[in-house]
Amino acid sequence: MSEPSGRNEPFDAVDVIVTKRGKQRLSDEQIDWVIDAYTRGAVADEQMSALAMAILLNGMDREEIARWTAAMIASGERMDFSSLSRPTADKHSTGGVGDKITLPLAPLVAACGVAVPQLSGRGLGHTGGTLDKLESIPGWRADLSNEDMLRQLEDVGAVICAAGSGLAPADKKLYALRDVTGTVEAIPLIASSIMSKKIAEGTGALVLDVKVGSGAFMKDVDDARELAETMVALGTDAGVTTVALLTNMQVPLGLTAGNALEVRESVEVLDGGGPPDVVELTVALAREMLAAAGREDVDPADALADGRAMDAWRAMISAQGGDPGAALPEAKETHTVEAPADGVLTQLDALKVGVAAWRLGAGRARKEDPVQAAAGVVMHAKPGATVRGGEPLLTLHTDTPERFDRALAALDGAYTIAPEGSRPDLLPLIIDRIAP
Amino acid sequence: MSEPSGRNEPFDAVDVIVTKRGKQRLSDEQIDWVIDAYTRGAVADEQMSALAMAILLNGMDREEIARWTAAMIASGERMDFSSLSRPTADKHSTGGVGDKITLPLAPLVAACGVAVPQLSGRGLGHTGGTLDKLESIPGWRADLSNEDMLRQLEDVGAVICAAGSGLAPADKKLYALRDVTGTVEAIPLIASSIMSKKIAEGTGALVLDVKVGSGAFMKDVDDARELAETMVALGTDAGVTTVALLTNMQVPLGLTAGNALEVRESVEVLDGGGPPDVVELTVALAREMLAAAGREDVDPADALADGRAMDAWRAMISAQGGDPGAALPEAKETHTVEAPADGVLTQLDALKVGVAAWRLGAGRARKEDPVQAAAGVVMHAKPGATVRGGEPLLTLHTDTPERFDRALAALDGAYTIAPEGSRPDLLPLIIDRIAP
Repeated sequence: MSEPSGRNEPFDAVDVIVTKRGKQRLSDEQIDWVIDAYTRGAVADEQMSALAMAILLNGMDREEIARWTAAMIASGERMDFSSLSRPTADKHSTGGVGDKITLPLAPLVAACGVAVPQLSGRGLGHTGGTLDKLESIPGWRADLSNEDMLRQLEDVGAVICAAGSGLAPADKKLYALRDVTGTVEAIPLIASSIMSKKIAEGTGALVLDVKVGSGAFMKDVDDARELAETMVALGTDAGVTTVALLTNMQVPLGLTAGNALEVRESVEVLDGGGPPDVVELTVALAREMLAAAGREDVDPADALADGRAMDAWRAMISAQGGDPGAALPEAKETHTVEAPADGVLTQLDALKVGVAAWRLGAGRARKEDPVQAAAGVVMHAKPGATVRGGEPLLTLHTDTPERFDRALAALDGAYTIAPEGSRPDLLPLIIDRIAP
Repeated sequence: MSEPSGRNEPFDAVDVIVTKRGKQRLSDEQIDWVIDAYTRGAVADEQMSALAMAILLNGMDREEIARWTAAMIASGERMDFSSLSRPTADKHSTGGVGDKITLPLAPLVAACGVAVPQLSGRGLGHTGGTLDKLESIPGWRADLSNEDMLRQLEDVGAVICAAGSGLAPADKKLYALRDVTGTVEAIPLIASSIMSKKIAEGTGALVLDVKVGSGAFMKDVDDARELAETMVALGTDAGVTTVALLTNMQVPLGLTAGNALEVRESVEVLDGGGPPDVVELTVALAREMLAAAGREDVDPADALADGRAMDAWRAMISAQGGDPGAALPEAKETHTVEAPADGVLTQLDALKVGVAAWRLGAGRARKEDPVQAAAGVVMHAKPGATVRGGEPLLTLHTDTPERFDRALAALDGAYTIAPEGSRPDLLPLIIDRIAP
């Protein structure tokens, strides 16, 4: 029985917090109000962080999450691609180490006739950001107007650019708050954050790559499945054809973690080479995107083999000012970690490699930090491979060699070399598929 | 595995929050740091509110609460009454409706030879504040220097004044934050908030009046007992002789709720009259304070009967500039609520009466709001009494009659009149006693 605040608000933030604190459902009206009032500043950061912690610990049901997502979408503009001559499909990854899949995937899907409007972010913490990676290409720029984006989607079929500030501004504000208040790891908040942006972005189809393992938000399969199911339901209810793959992030993807290093590996994939896991996941996600957009008839493996995907990549990079033929930055210093003994590499921990790459300069601890384009880790073997003592296992790249010590400290226990004949005990690359 | 913040702090606030979020113990070093850093502003409000919610939902053990309390005490100064010629004892109530007990109690105990250094607060919400009540006495002032306080304790034996800003500043900041973030009702935070102030205040003995019922923080006996046991352990460990009574707050204390109204009732008690429940609780708490201070030999009932308590009251009020003989403010308007039928009053809800008094102007919704000295509710019957239809049951007092409607709305369902022969089903006034 609290008193009205005197500010002509229909609810009191404390009452909303106390409702969720007591494990009760938030009403539609409470959710609409709290998101709107937070965006306006009538609910303070310290109130929203207490609510976020209560949601993290006490949960929200499907209807609450759907309403929360809708309220965040309603806080900003929605894009509309219905004027395009082809269907649209987008992909979202929950983030992992060495996850450069968006780079070959977007042009590959475009080459198959489906437009890819990929609004991406910059990295924070041990997982890199797609925009950080592309910004290592000389001249490439992430900021496009909505008009430029639409024109590029029509002309090239693929665009990877920064999300404008107009999409789901409530989510932007809330995400920044969660990041500093220990409230990131709440499935309802992760799901609504991702889906509010993707639904507001206006894509017709969406494929979610939900990572599982040490290098991912979700450390175990059950949590990842719950997140995937929650997001698939949210997308489906909002009229977006949505499918999710649960994929392995116990081990880094591919053989590189770092910005320019990952661009180089992506170009290898578009050129018909590249590490098998990156190729497999790129093609699998492309098939899902094409199917979700109604183009089951097209095989993306063909577009990769015959050079059409590479053509689309070059066109996409050029359209955003980048020079697809330019040399990529190289690190000023490298340090090689050698295999300590002969044997089989049975584990290579994604989180530890990711933290090492971050500490070498590939990632940032705060939003305003710069990243080094050339910093990162190159892996010379992946689990299952036979290694020889004294041969290179990892090469660390940085422009600032004083960072090597802390990067090496992060790699303590990052790999295991077992006697010959041993086999790694790992989940498959593609663990499961979640459809509506 | 977070990165250092770069601000030369030994801990990261997110790590501390995540520890408690995951139901783990906070280390002594984490607690010392987070309280100090919050006081300094290096931990932000939104981080502390997320931590407070995690503590509310996941708890703290006895050792964590003791360390948290010690860290709050260490954030400010400690007072020292060892130079006084007599022992000291203080009382703290967790707050209730019509709880004016401090007013007759402090002079009564002083009259029995034990000094009472009562640092009090102003009211927020539906429970009134002791200072608000005393400020209805013309000329009386709450702000004393430490020197004035010591002198008055030596000369008069009782002082009721505002806590200086130097005692437990971490608690002041945290309490204001909890108030707006739905994190007030956490036993570890309530206990450490109360006890940090009382231990820093330097009293030798402390009696806690832990209220139970609709008008109290603690709605049920088990929660109240847990809070009482936690506080008694904290005080005992800190070298303060500490005892708690669990007392009934299902029904308002006495026949008045409001500032000047409660002063008038307190003077009646000091004059040998007054409502039986106020007299009983005042004498019981006085006995506990005297015993805790080593004066089991003195009977406070005598000091009440022979006028010594009234003499001490007059001296205490005069010493702080008040005129104990002055007329108290009277409300400009009154409105009478009549009993709707003949019968027995079987319930009179403390919370609803408290909210009505608040809405009439006796309390404040925000710290900066003024209160009306004369506003409040006078009760003409208490549960168990026989009432006649059409006779006055409650009288509402205010200077601003536009407040009557909302006060009457708060009283919806506040009382029940049952057929003659019915009996109220209520807890006893003194429910239990908790000693170390």
